[in-house]
Amino acid sequence: MRDVYVIGVGSTRYGQLLDWGVREMAEEAAYGALKDAGAGPGDIQVAYCGTQGMACADTTMLHGQIALEQIGITGIPITNIKNACGSGSNAFREAWLALQSGLYDVALAIGFEKMCAPLIGQAEVLFGAGGGDTVMEGSMGFFPPGSFAMAARFHMEKYGTTREQIARVAVKNRRYGALNPKAHFRKEITLEEVLKSRTIAEPLNMYDCCPISDGCAVAILAGAEGAGRFSGEPVAVAASAHVSGTYAEQVELNADTTRRAARTAYEMAGLGPGDIDFAEVHDCFSYAELKHYEDLGFCHDGEGGRMIEEGEVEIDGRVAVNISGGLIAKGHPLGATGIGQIGEVVTQIRGRAGPRQIAKARIGLTHNGGGFRHADTGIVAVHILKKV
Amino acid sequence: MRDVYVIGVGSTRYGQLLDWGVREMAEEAAYGALKDAGAGPGDIQVAYCGTQGMACADTTMLHGQIALEQIGITGIPITNIKNACGSGSNAFREAWLALQSGLYDVALAIGFEKMCAPLIGQAEVLFGAGGGDTVMEGSMGFFPPGSFAMAARFHMEKYGTTREQIARVAVKNRRYGALNPKAHFRKEITLEEVLKSRTIAEPLNMYDCCPISDGCAVAILAGAEGAGRFSGEPVAVAASAHVSGTYAEQVELNADTTRRAARTAYEMAGLGPGDIDFAEVHDCFSYAELKHYEDLGFCHDGEGGRMIEEGEVEIDGRVAVNISGGLIAKGHPLGATGIGQIGEVVTQIRGRAGPRQIAKARIGLTHNGGGFRHADTGIVAVHILKKV
Repeated sequence: MRDVYVIGVGSTRYGQLLDWGVREMAEEAAYGALKDAGAGPGDIQVAYCGTQGMACADTTMLHGQIALEQIGITGIPITNIKNACGSGSNAFREAWLALQSGLYDVALAIGFEKMCAPLIGQAEVLFGAGGGDTVMEGSMGFFPPGSFAMAARFHMEKYGTTREQIARVAVKNRRYGALNPKAHFRKEITLEEVLKSRTIAEPLNMYDCCPISDGCAVAILAGAEGAGRFSGEPVAVAASAHVSGTYAEQVELNADTTRRAARTAYEMAGLGPGDIDFAEVHDCFSYAELKHYEDLGFCHDGEGGRMIEEGEVEIDGRVAVNISGGLIAKGHPLGATGIGQIGEVVTQIRGRAGPRQIAKARIGLTHNGGGFRHADTGIVAVHILKKV
Repeated sequence: MRDVYVIGVGSTRYGQLLDWGVREMAEEAAYGALKDAGAGPGDIQVAYCGTQGMACADTTMLHGQIALEQIGITGIPITNIKNACGSGSNAFREAWLALQSGLYDVALAIGFEKMCAPLIGQAEVLFGAGGGDTVMEGSMGFFPPGSFAMAARFHMEKYGTTREQIARVAVKNRRYGALNPKAHFRKEITLEEVLKSRTIAEPLNMYDCCPISDGCAVAILAGAEGAGRFSGEPVAVAASAHVSGTYAEQVELNADTTRRAARTAYEMAGLGPGDIDFAEVHDCFSYAELKHYEDLGFCHDGEGGRMIEEGEVEIDGRVAVNISGGLIAKGHPLGATGIGQIGEVVTQIRGRAGPRQIAKARIGLTHNGGGFRHADTGIVAVHILKKV
């Protein structure tokens, strides 16, 4: 396997960027990444664009071509990838894979979503059956909040996980989001506020859910031979894993895909969960984060609730989780999310995260998932990045 | 570069498959390809799905996961690729690139489109600005027939290409489509019928346009080490090129992207246009095929009209073009088109094309494009396949 590095990252802030179209978002994020890498548009040899391509965007096809021509990147192979909420990390992985082929030395991954145009956005959610497909999940009314609520209830009954433990995820992530200038929500919330917020799907309330965000994130990757040409401080990609759902394990939402992706990534990196200093995980709902602790191997099954209660996932904990604010506070612009996680891990490893800097940030993991297949996740990607 | 082979191909017939959803189409095409390769679902290690994902399909996300679980392919990395009418060959190329990485030995590319549900389909065309984006091409009313009509008019004025020469492409492709049991249109048409059919965008009439088709096509690829394990007769992938549009050349639609993709492919294969026995090219409109002869180097600029008039692109000509019937007769189910072209070339090289078999079919080329960017094409992919 070829050594591949992230040499530059950039992103917009996440939020309701009502005055911005895809072009404006892409320009800011891509320019930021090129500047960070010390690279020019002509250095990029191949590009991947992750977006679910929501109907309220001003692009409905050729997403990557349209986004990247803003910054003068044209002509090269540009592939658009659509894999639900995992589109961004899927694009990052394909960029990594293209470098593994040896045909290219420098690749770019861009992810974006333009979701904030309420009426059209809602039509798309109905069309899309909220993460599944219209025949299966759609016909059953199987939407994300309900699915995660069922899974949360299952976990509470099986392991004694409490409603308060689940709510603590939202409190934690909003607390760290307040330290992130690019986060959608920068206001802290209390445990009481979470528990008293409007019910969305019992036991999950409004503050247990990530917001609908606009945003764009970009990462530039280079093979070992190419990385030295650029001034951007390189961070090594130690593992890149991508799996799809199966029929294998249908009771506990997310369990099987996340476990298989994590196993593949740890094996590729020659590392175990105990080696991970910090992680950015897919907390689309507060409950999900607790389950990810378990499925990523940070604790045993059923101990997710205890882990947050005992502070093990805080900024100074055993494994710091979602110190960017996660999807719940930083926001969730579908296609941008996975690449934004990579950006956060790179920033932490470089020691440039300012007030939210993790003291020991040598090895970081990203976990990004998307869509439903028979109560399992449609796609999960796990990446491990390492200080050089 | 690693030697990669196509070891199996399969497809549905193309047409208005009103009783079939994505699942039924995928099952037929994927089962056909596995059977042809002598492989089982468990042999596939990575998969790419090309589809523009039109709104009338019963899948709006996780296209590949949904399509492939029909045939028992789950769990592996499945990446969905959306690149306008070039989505299929983009997926094929990513499968090839994944094998180039050395991480996988057997890959599958599937492409499909479900377009025949008139009302919703029309809404999608409006949303999609017909191949461009809503801000640029959409705001200018720049739709495919008009764009190709302008380009045809330009060619007629510059080179003296005649209306009859353009119409002959439709007559030829419908004649060969009649020999293809999987073609959307199997009825021959006369030159007079083309010239007298309803005007769509002057000088192009109804019979100059490809139809709106449903369909699915699948190809299975293997690295040299893996190919021997399967019984499917291997056909070598001699070149795989993918380029995006630039601002470079804006007058002649398609010119620059097709030329750059062809140049890249010829160089990779160590071949020239004179070595190509036959080709499947993107004749979304009759005029386009004439231009592709020139841009692929089969003749000099301005000689496309002469080439068809003199029979050089017939089944027994110097370079046989679109003997499947092309997009005009075989049909154009966007995401399936590029992979279907690969299927046709494989079938011809294997000598299994029945009544439409080309006598000398040792080296075949596919050309598939999609979308508009500033009067150039958004994506063009060119592949060259070779008898082993």
